[in-house]
Parts: sequence; structure tokens; C-alpha cells
Amino acid sequence: MLIRPAEAADWESIWPFFREIVTIGETYCYPDQITSESARSSWMTEAPGITVVAELEGRIVGSARIGPNRDGRGAHVATAAFMVDPRSQGEGVGRALAEFTLDWARTTGYRAMQFNAVVATNIGAVSLWKSLGFEILATVPEAFDHAADGLVGLHIMYRSLLDRPILRSESSMRRVPRG
Amino acid sequence: MLIRPAEAADWESIWPFFREIVTIGETYCYPDQITSESARSSWMTEAPGITVVAELEGRIVGSARIGPNRDGRGAHVATAAFMVDPRSQGEGVGRALAEFTLDWARTTGYRAMQFNAVVATNIGAVSLWKSLGFEILATVPEAFDHAADGLVGLHIMYRSLLDRPILRSESSMRRVPRG
Repeated sequence: MLIRPAEAADWESIWPFFREIVTIGETYCYPDQITSESARSSWMTEAPGITVVAELEGRIVGSARIGPNRDGRGAHVATAAFMVDPRSQGEGVGRALAEFTLDWARTTGYRAMQFNAVVATNIGAVSLWKSLGFEILATVPEAFDHAADGLVGLHIMYRSLLDRPILRSESSMRRVPRG
Repeated sequence: MLIRPAEAADWESIWPFFREIVTIGETYCYPDQITSESARSSWMTEAPGITVVAELEGRIVGSARIGPNRDGRGAHVATAAFMVDPRSQGEGVGRALAEFTLDWARTTGYRAMQFNAVVATNIGAVSLWKSLGFEILATVPEAFDHAADGLVGLHIMYRSLLDRPILRSESSMRRVPRG
């Protein structure tokens, strides 16, 4: 799988699964009727942030947006968002994007990464983040109107990037140590 | 003290203390070098949100911005931000704006109010919110680069608007019960 910076022309490959994920209504707070133009402007971020895509056999199967969680005096904490084509779920796309994102944020000099709104019923995402060293700082009660489950919590998840613990997935993937 | 919706022309009264507060660097994550135009566009919000000003003896001494904390499936939780002219601190401006904000959000149909980034050393604000029924859900460690104190935490604070407990300040202010 290749993770690379997104180019403007990639949007036409991202938008179909972005729209599908938002329409399903189980993971994101984008407006249900969001237009391609509004979604593009939100997702295809610019410096100091970055948007990347995951390519598998020449097909774009996911995307991530990374950047500062706040401006100014809060800009040393990163945040990120992820979209994986539902047709490619279970193929490690989310994990590959997540690991890239953590490496990018650490290398870029961010001190930590924070997710502001992880839907509590999105157990795949929650367990992925936990396996990558994130903890749930808090759960905002009933903050997400889930299309199937009604009002459910939104987790705020956090991971320091200052330490460099071995990620669980790294040992299981038997990577070559990077130093 | 009069709390009323802000008009476009009010920005020239808000900007001097907005800029001063951001420059002091102890409470907000706006960029230090933010321009008036960028600050105006962020602060003077439109429907479904609202920006209000506090007037005392004909002078604008504070402002608040209220609206949905998230879009779409998260839009039933409100958030708000507050600026009080440093020359008018200790005169109850923040409390008056806070009480208006809670009333507005409840009346407008929001289920809760959430603050995403209350600087932990801003004890005046933290104690005001606590006195108005907010709790600290979590503190993101070292998430704010305080101009004087260095890295300090950012509180995520929360209050349900579904119950209608008597606010501590209401009893002390001996208001006429509203129902």
C-alpha cells in the first residue's frame, strides 16, 4: 500500500466514499447534505497541514487529513481525520494511514495528537487508536446523533508523541527498527 | 448591563480588546498576529450561531459568540467563546454574558454546551463555568503555550441543558423566577 500526499485531481476519487461515509451517518459530523465543493475545501488541507491518500493496486482506497488541532498557542498539538472506502475495510487501510499520520506528526514536530470527536460506537476506530497508544481522555455524552443508534458519546482521544514507545502493531508486523 | 446581538459596526469596538486579549497570550488559541479581518470573520458569526455584545453605560465591554460545536450530527451541542475588555474585568461582564449564552442555547434547543479549550490557568473563567454548572470532562495536558507560564493544560468543559437546576448565581442575584 502506498501512502502519498493528495493532489487536487485525487478529490474525484475521494469524494464518492467521503459522501457515502457521511451519508451512512455513523462516524462524522459533516452535514448530511454536504456538497463536493464544501467537502473538498474542508478535506484537501494546505500547509501547515497535509492531506494524504492510500493507494492499493493503483486505486485510492482511503485518505487522511492531518494538521494542527488549534491555531496559535495550541498549534503544537496535531489532529487528524480518516476516511476509508467501505469497499476496502478490513484491509489495513485505516491502520496504514494512522501509522503514517503518527510518523508525520512526530517528524513534523508536534508534541501530541488529539482526536476531538471519535464516535463511541465506532469500535473499529476506537480499538485501532488504542492499539496505537491513544487513550480516551473523556467521552462527551450524547454528543453524536448516530443514524442507527441515536444519541451516542463522542470520545476525545489523545496520544503524546514525545515518548517513542514501541507500537503494538509494529512488533506484530516485525518491522525493521527505525533507530 | 445590556446584552444584545452584535451589529457589523460593533466590530470596531470589539477588535481593540480582542486584539489585546490575544496579544497577552494567556487565554486563546488565535494566532498572535491575527488581522482584524480574520478575527472579525471568525468572531462575528452568522445563523445558526449568534454574536452578542455586552454594553455598560453605552460602552461595549465584552462579547460572546455562540453556536453549534460541530456540524451535522453533532450540531445539537452548543459551544461559545467570550471576550471581556480587560478594563472591565471584575464587573460581572463575563457572568452576564455566560448567563445570556446558557439561556440562549437552552431556548434555541441545544441539549448541552461544551467548551473545547479552557486554559487551565484561567482560574477566573474555570470557576465562573463551575459556578454555572459546568464540569471539567478532561484536561488535555500541555495543550496551550501560555505566554507567561509555558505549556499548560486545556480543559474540556461541559454542561447539560436538559435539566434546569437553579444556577448558583441566580439565587444570589434574587431574580424573579422565570417559570
